[in-house]
Amino acid sequence: MKPVKVGLLGLGTVGTGVVRIVERHQEDLLGQAGSPIIIEQIAVKNTNKLRSVPIDADKLTDDPWDVIRNPEIDVIIEVMGGINQTKEYILEALASGKHVVTANKDLMALHGQEILAKARENRCDVMYEASVAGGIPIIRTLIEGFSSDRITKIMGIVNGTTNYMLTKMTQEGVSYSDVLREAQELGYAEADPTSDVEGLDAARKMAILATLGFRTNVALEDVSVRGISSISQEDIQYAKRLGYEVKLLGIAERENDAISVTVQPTMVKNTHPIASVNGVFNAVYVYGEAVGETMFYGPGAGEMPTATSIVADLVAVVKNLKLGVNGQQAAAIFRDKKLMSDEQTMSKNFLLLHVDDRAGVLAQITQVFAEYGVSLESVLQQPNPTNPEAEIIVITHDASRASIQKVLQVFESLDVIRTVKSAYRVEG
Amino acid sequence: MKPVKVGLLGLGTVGTGVVRIVERHQEDLLGQAGSPIIIEQIAVKNTNKLRSVPIDADKLTDDPWDVIRNPEIDVIIEVMGGINQTKEYILEALASGKHVVTANKDLMALHGQEILAKARENRCDVMYEASVAGGIPIIRTLIEGFSSDRITKIMGIVNGTTNYMLTKMTQEGVSYSDVLREAQELGYAEADPTSDVEGLDAARKMAILATLGFRTNVALEDVSVRGISSISQEDIQYAKRLGYEVKLLGIAERENDAISVTVQPTMVKNTHPIASVNGVFNAVYVYGEAVGETMFYGPGAGEMPTATSIVADLVAVVKNLKLGVNGQQAAAIFRDKKLMSDEQTMSKNFLLLHVDDRAGVLAQITQVFAEYGVSLESVLQQPNPTNPEAEIIVITHDASRASIQKVLQVFESLDVIRTVKSAYRVEG
Repeated sequence: MKPVKVGLLGLGTVGTGVVRIVERHQEDLLGQAGSPIIIEQIAVKNTNKLRSVPIDADKLTDDPWDVIRNPEIDVIIEVMGGINQTKEYILEALASGKHVVTANKDLMALHGQEILAKARENRCDVMYEASVAGGIPIIRTLIEGFSSDRITKIMGIVNGTTNYMLTKMTQEGVSYSDVLREAQELGYAEADPTSDVEGLDAARKMAILATLGFRTNVALEDVSVRGISSISQEDIQYAKRLGYEVKLLGIAERENDAISVTVQPTMVKNTHPIASVNGVFNAVYVYGEAVGETMFYGPGAGEMPTATSIVADLVAVVKNLKLGVNGQQAAAIFRDKKLMSDEQTMSKNFLLLHVDDRAGVLAQITQVFAEYGVSLESVLQQPNPTNPEAEIIVITHDASRASIQKVLQVFESLDVIRTVKSAYRVEG
Repeated sequence: MKPVKVGLLGLGTVGTGVVRIVERHQEDLLGQAGSPIIIEQIAVKNTNKLRSVPIDADKLTDDPWDVIRNPEIDVIIEVMGGINQTKEYILEALASGKHVVTANKDLMALHGQEILAKARENRCDVMYEASVAGGIPIIRTLIEGFSSDRITKIMGIVNGTTNYMLTKMTQEGVSYSDVLREAQELGYAEADPTSDVEGLDAARKMAILATLGFRTNVALEDVSVRGISSISQEDIQYAKRLGYEVKLLGIAERENDAISVTVQPTMVKNTHPIASVNGVFNAVYVYGEAVGETMFYGPGAGEMPTATSIVADLVAVVKNLKLGVNGQQAAAIFRDKKLMSDEQTMSKNFLLLHVDDRAGVLAQITQVFAEYGVSLESVLQQPNPTNPEAEIIVITHDASRASIQKVLQVFESLDVIRTVKSAYRVEG
């Protein structure tokens, strides 16, 4: 049996995990894939750095092109990150007939279609299970498990950092800035946390999931994004009282053939399965017309979970190699993209208003909702203990994004409303 | 493009769902599978019965052999149920080069290895995603998603009927016999509910999951089974008070290369993700050495969820047909089976004892535990309001099944213990 030779780009946390799994589970992998698997060469930044796994020095190079151009290598595993330069490596690897396994969500969200087209052209596999929700085999599930169904909604907690932060804020009552500092100290959040807390990381993953789920090409700029940095303890406490959890939710929806993809803080009814996903865990909830509700739960990141997904992809590539069928996955994309308008995008909404504490205010406000056809599920008015305002909390029935925007515009010019403190989508 | 022709054995609930999906989603299926799919012939018991989907009368036959021997047919979908006769149909279909998709857990649990061997011999596919946990693509996940990991534990709520019953008993305080009657009236439980309530249905599914997860041939007789019929409201209320939910749990475990598979009522800590799976929903929790905790949640039965899994299998068969690689899935089984002894099988345990209400009883009891090396996590003693006994509730730390059995034997001959009211495994 000819061994399959692998070139690794990057030997950080995840790359080290890949080396560990391939070495520890040689026998299992042989049983699974039918061929021995050898890590042939590894591109690293610093060839002299001490590693936590034993690696022959002569397998290391500091030039990724050495790996890409190594004629011995059958499969490239890319775990170095980066976008433009990394894309060049991958395109060149595919051009020379090498298969690619990558964990790079940024790359796949931005250039996935170009890379997949290049792969088909060269009859090569590109697999990227690890790019979304680390250890959860959700990409495989969307491509194969639900191939016969029409998926109409995908909701994801796909960023562990923000879910950890929101869980802490909910369970321990700490402020956004305190929990961010703590997450940074624990290494869950980066020194510049923008990509996580402003929802960009989640948006990339949702673009990938929506592309697969709806089989249409969803680009990053199609995703409307709002992060968690403006969430206050007040919001979280109100949510709790009303039976909701505040989660940063990616929501991809399809109505007929128009789609909408958003990432935004959302109040999720606490009886919904996704409401109980806490800490750094990820979960993807999928609604299919035929199957109904399903949810996939697991670790969203980390050395070993992510490496598991990468090596599972590697096993799939090796099986295809043995069968001679690489690069022949049916094209996933076969529908034209049509985005929902703001008039078509419907959801329930939570609004927290600070208003003048005098007679007739509630009547004025509810009249504005009525004017724009927004009906209300519940209204709660109470005095604000700390100042002479009253608070009004409204949860609407399903209303279009357009009508809610119009209501909010009118509220800005309404004398009796001092501030619209918060506005959130509501699910479940 | 030559269409792929399907023969259907059975047109009950699930068969009807398959016809519905294939007709409704022709365009999507063509995009997925690359070939049109035609339901060519259907074997039914009564060809004159009125159907809820429109079907050409000349496609119906009351003899399954007509379908098996129809040379036009490429793929057989078996949704008629049954074991011995059905096995003959399937073996003959494979012998004549037809691929098989089945939802038949009984057949796969009892004769899976023989059927899979016959399939390999004839280069045919046999797929059975729908046989376990209806709409959840768990078989695909175990074969492919975790191919690189070493799975050490699978816990499943894989019988919707009993989970519905236990959920009702927990949430509404109704008795076992009342909830059984209600489940029968709703059609969730059959007139003879034995297979569900005594855990046999779950055992068949666990044998299939353990075989795939541990890649060793687990037979039905390897599964130790206990049903839910002896669970009382008292047990459920005590569980609640201590922070547990009572679930009928299938548990497959591996320690080194020895395995254990059981189905039994289990007290699950209410913070564990599987504890919140309620009603007729199913969930499979998978623990992998590398990936850690994952869980897959969804509908366990029903016309459309089950049909979705069947048609997803059908799409996979059609893709393989186009690639010419049917029957070439790497053999999943490559480990010899070794069952754990009772000395090796470890778990926490819950015991509810009714004892004489006098001094020194607790000391006597705890001494028995100590004698057999069982250490205790918590002990609660309280008077029993309805009679002159006291109740003692013990939760042990991890202890071997053998030592718990010895403790229970001694308890039988201990004067101060009137009854061991309940004994359950504890998880989470």
